[in-house]
Amino acid sequence: MWLDASCTLKFDIVVPTPFVLMLRPRSGVHQWIAREEYRLTPTVPVFEFTDAYGNLCQRLVAPPGRFTIRTAAEVMVVDRMDQAPGAPFVEVQYLPDSVLSYLLPSRYCESDRFGQMATEITAGCLPGYDQVAAIVTWLRTSIGYRPGSSSVPMSAIDVNMGLTGVCRDLAHLGIALCRGLSIPARMVVGYLHGLEPMDLHAWFEAYVGGRWYTFDATQDELTGGYIAIGYGRDAADVAVYNQFGPAVYPTSQEIRVECVEDHDD
Amino acid sequence: MWLDASCTLKFDIVVPTPFVLMLRPRSGVHQWIAREEYRLTPTVPVFEFTDAYGNLCQRLVAPPGRFTIRTAAEVMVVDRMDQAPGAPFVEVQYLPDSVLSYLLPSRYCESDRFGQMATEITAGCLPGYDQVAAIVTWLRTSIGYRPGSSSVPMSAIDVNMGLTGVCRDLAHLGIALCRGLSIPARMVVGYLHGLEPMDLHAWFEAYVGGRWYTFDATQDELTGGYIAIGYGRDAADVAVYNQFGPAVYPTSQEIRVECVEDHDD
Amino acid sequence: MWLDASCTLKFDIVVPTPFVLMLRPRSGVHQWIAREEYRLTPTVPVFEFTDAYGNLCQRLVAPPGRFTIRTAAEVMVVDRMDQAPGAPFVEVQYLPDSVLSYLLPSRYCESDRFGQMATEITAGCLPGYDQVAAIVTWLRTSIGYRPGSSSVPMSAIDVNMGLTGVCRDLAHLGIALCRGLSIPARMVVGYLHGLEPMDLHAWFEAYVGGRWYTFDATQDELTGGYIAIGYGRDAADVAVYNQFGPAVYPTSQEIRVECVEDHDD
Amino acid sequence: MWLDASCTLKFDIVVPTPFVLMLRPRSGVHQWIAREEYRLTPTVPVFEFTDAYGNLCQRLVAPPGRFTIRTAAEVMVVDRMDQAPGAPFVEVQYLPDSVLSYLLPSRYCESDRFGQMATEITAGCLPGYDQVAAIVTWLRTSIGYRPGSSSVPMSAIDVNMGLTGVCRDLAHLGIALCRGLSIPARMVVGYLHGLEPMDLHAWFEAYVGGRWYTFDATQDELTGGYIAIGYGRDAADVAVYNQFGPAVYPTSQEIRVECVEDHDD
Repeated sequence: MWLDASCTLKFDIVVPTPFVLMLRPRSGVHQWIAREEYRLTPTVPVFEFTDAYGNLCQRLVAPPGRFTIRTAAEVMVVDRMDQAPGAPFVEVQYLPDSVLSYLLPSRYCESDRFGQMATEITAGCLPGYDQVAAIVTWLRTSIGYRPGSSSVPMSAIDVNMGLTGVCRDLAHLGIALCRGLSIPARMVVGYLHGLEPMDLHAWFEAYVGGRWYTFDATQDELTGGYIAIGYGRDAADVAVYNQFGPAVYPTSQEIRVECVEDHDD
Repeated sequence: MWLDASCTLKFDIVVPTPFVLMLRPRSGVHQWIAREEYRLTPTVPVFEFTDAYGNLCQRLVAPPGRFTIRTAAEVMVVDRMDQAPGAPFVEVQYLPDSVLSYLLPSRYCESDRFGQMATEITAGCLPGYDQVAAIVTWLRTSIGYRPGSSSVPMSAIDVNMGLTGVCRDLAHLGIALCRGLSIPARMVVGYLHGLEPMDLHAWFEAYVGGRWYTFDATQDELTGGYIAIGYGRDAADVAVYNQFGPAVYPTSQEIRVECVEDHDD
Repeated sequence: MWLDASCTLKFDIVVPTPFVLMLRPRSGVHQWIAREEYRLTPTVPVFEFTDAYGNLCQRLVAPPGRFTIRTAAEVMVVDRMDQAPGAPFVEVQYLPDSVLSYLLPSRYCESDRFGQMATEITAGCLPGYDQVAAIVTWLRTSIGYRPGSSSVPMSAIDVNMGLTGVCRDLAHLGIALCRGLSIPARMVVGYLHGLEPMDLHAWFEAYVGGRWYTFDATQDELTGGYIAIGYGRDAADVAVYNQFGPAVYPTSQEIRVECVEDHDD
Repeated sequence: MWLDASCTLKFDIVVPTPFVLMLRPRSGVHQWIAREEYRLTPTVPVFEFTDAYGNLCQRLVAPPGRFTIRTAAEVMVVDRMDQAPGAPFVEVQYLPDSVLSYLLPSRYCESDRFGQMATEITAGCLPGYDQVAAIVTWLRTSIGYRPGSSSVPMSAIDVNMGLTGVCRDLAHLGIALCRGLSIPARMVVGYLHGLEPMDLHAWFEAYVGGRWYTFDATQDELTGGYIAIGYGRDAADVAVYNQFGPAVYPTSQEIRVECVEDHDD
């Protein structure tokens, strides 16, 4: 499936404000970036670097006045994300080195507090994929998914107490529960075709059966149409924008994801 | 100053238990490792890797029965850690890429909640080193330092509510306050010569004036005698041992740090 | 200056052929990638990774038949590359760790053989930038620049014996001479606006005065208009395409670099 | 098998001389470092970093006068290196990203020139391990192994013309031949128990059947007793010492490797 996705963020900047952005998707296992745009108005110097998770990040100082960031991409994505019921739990000693840090608790995924609860939710499940699937089913039935975005992320503990959250918050609780079972789990931020209402989206991946699998507690069914922009331990690592100094919020945010019907291949 | 330091941990293992250890200090700016030992009894296969922070980590599966880990090192350390009153704040846009992640909130340093408080504590200070020094002074006078170790780390929020903590917990609050001011800060775990009572220790570093400086809210005065073993965002990243599966605690833990009086150089 | 650059490579593939491509420029100090395209015909699965030099590389298996790779980018580049006569030599002990490997000899830059010659060419020069400038002047006057491309790279020794070479070959000799003076030097492959005849281009950078500077022995004068695609120790590391198995050469290669006159900013 | 290994290098330094050393072995798949020493006389400031191959490197400036470097280690190594006749060739598209760079030609392994010769030497062999074994057999019978060390490394081309070389030089030719067949190969420098006459040693590894295997053309039979100190593409990357400025050679070099008979485990 070919998708055209775009994100336009507008800010009214008062004082010069340093930003670290994460808005450039990379080609990966599930996606191929065939075209990509990244426009800043006004044009300012940008420095790009790769963070510890492999994300391409952009550093700039937004000047006072209206500041617009527009990114767009044409991406080939898989029609359906892989699912693997029965894929086994990987014992910690056999995990790749690079995956170990996704077992640790993080700012918004206090997994050290969720071992007992995760064990109860997944009672009777085969260790591995089926445990994660049980966690996702539990999230769908027990936590109210409130579409839209909120400026302040909720941690797994917050979500579990409030029983409601946006996509990012549900992912936090899902991740914390997985790690509570010693299953590596990480956050993904990106686009989802067909999301209602359209917005940037967040979901999570869990490492079972020797690879990462995608999970999304906000959707009834796991389809395709996902474009990943950033990966990390939780929303602290994967912020579409991190801004420093006096808080600044977008005055508008416009997201589009459309299917490219007539792609000739 | 030459130091002989050692750490002996004993466990009674019931079921084979995967561990990730962080007990091999590396030579660095402040220390030179002239001799080092790492003994496991019984001997088991160990795999060593370097984590995202540059720490050497050891992976193994502890077998049932008594399991002993003994590490020792002879290290040349600086007699006095550098201090730099007046060293300026580095604006976010001028920080090295590698330092940016130490601005983000982490599991035990919820810096997103400490901006206001940090601003109040450092009111009137020159931005940079002097702000961090003011935070350390505030920690010394406002938070009760309880020597010894506790099995469960306290986060900055916990410490700020409980007003007491072990060295690691004080470091968490110090780090959260620094990051609340957009000053990169990170945790260090290691040895400190002369610590009373002797134990493993934790302190923090803040990035001002173009480099990392050491801060320790548990000591009246910043001396030398520090041996760093691990660096990270907080105690979640820098655990001397991370153990997976049913919880296991050391049945004994013996730490020694002695001055090598007659070193011949 | 805004440039539109594109590269179209066509191959006639006989047996399925694995490729590693390096055709996705990254935003950096000298350039900002505002738009980028990467089209494969037919479409095949691609896996992208970052190599040890930070280059984005694409892995794929080209299927039998006509195979076309087309990449294009709209890039803001500097109007004039920085020059810094007098910028000092950095003594080896003060070089950043990340720069040290660019002092070592490599496949096509046998710098271990060029210490004496480099010393003679730069006799009387201030150590640092001026030495590199003297090397470039010597290359311009002593080595015949033969535009166009050749399939087999020539090493510094080859070039020095044959006294002629394409851009890549001149860069090899320039790099070997710099390293012979303990000046870190690396190869860059990319586009150059105004190159006659138009083609992919190669030049080199040397590390003096605390940063990398651009040098190009094929041009009378160092202008702007450079778009870097890949960095490495020499042409072995920085190949626009590396192909494995029976040798395959492009049946056509079309490069365009045009100034975007009416860019609205 | 437990080994005690040590290396003592003495230099007479005339002018302050920057060094990059690679003399600290790391624990890995085949070895566990239980004790290690690293002594410099006189003591000078040292900075340690990890290079692109994962080697721990030490930077220092040797002061005028007698300068001694002594390193020692007590290491548990495997009794016999794994061999795997029949282990299959891994097609380039299935190699891990991290292994790809070991397919490229390098300073002393001009693999771009050895494809034809490698094909001839391995005619009739099953692709993979058996090809590498055939290369090693060919090296043993066709190239004269001259024990001892030489100050200037010979490249694969040099060795193939001269038909003789030290361990490092034979490894260069072995590596170049493997890469000529699209088999990743890398150099290892370290100790070998029982080497006659005792010295530092060099051998190589080839990636077949999904992992690295050890090969050593200087020994009639592959035993155990290997301690790896450094890995790289060839001797340019893996130098026990790299020294900059006017050439300085050790006035003495003493290597010992002894079996620890009575190790109590």
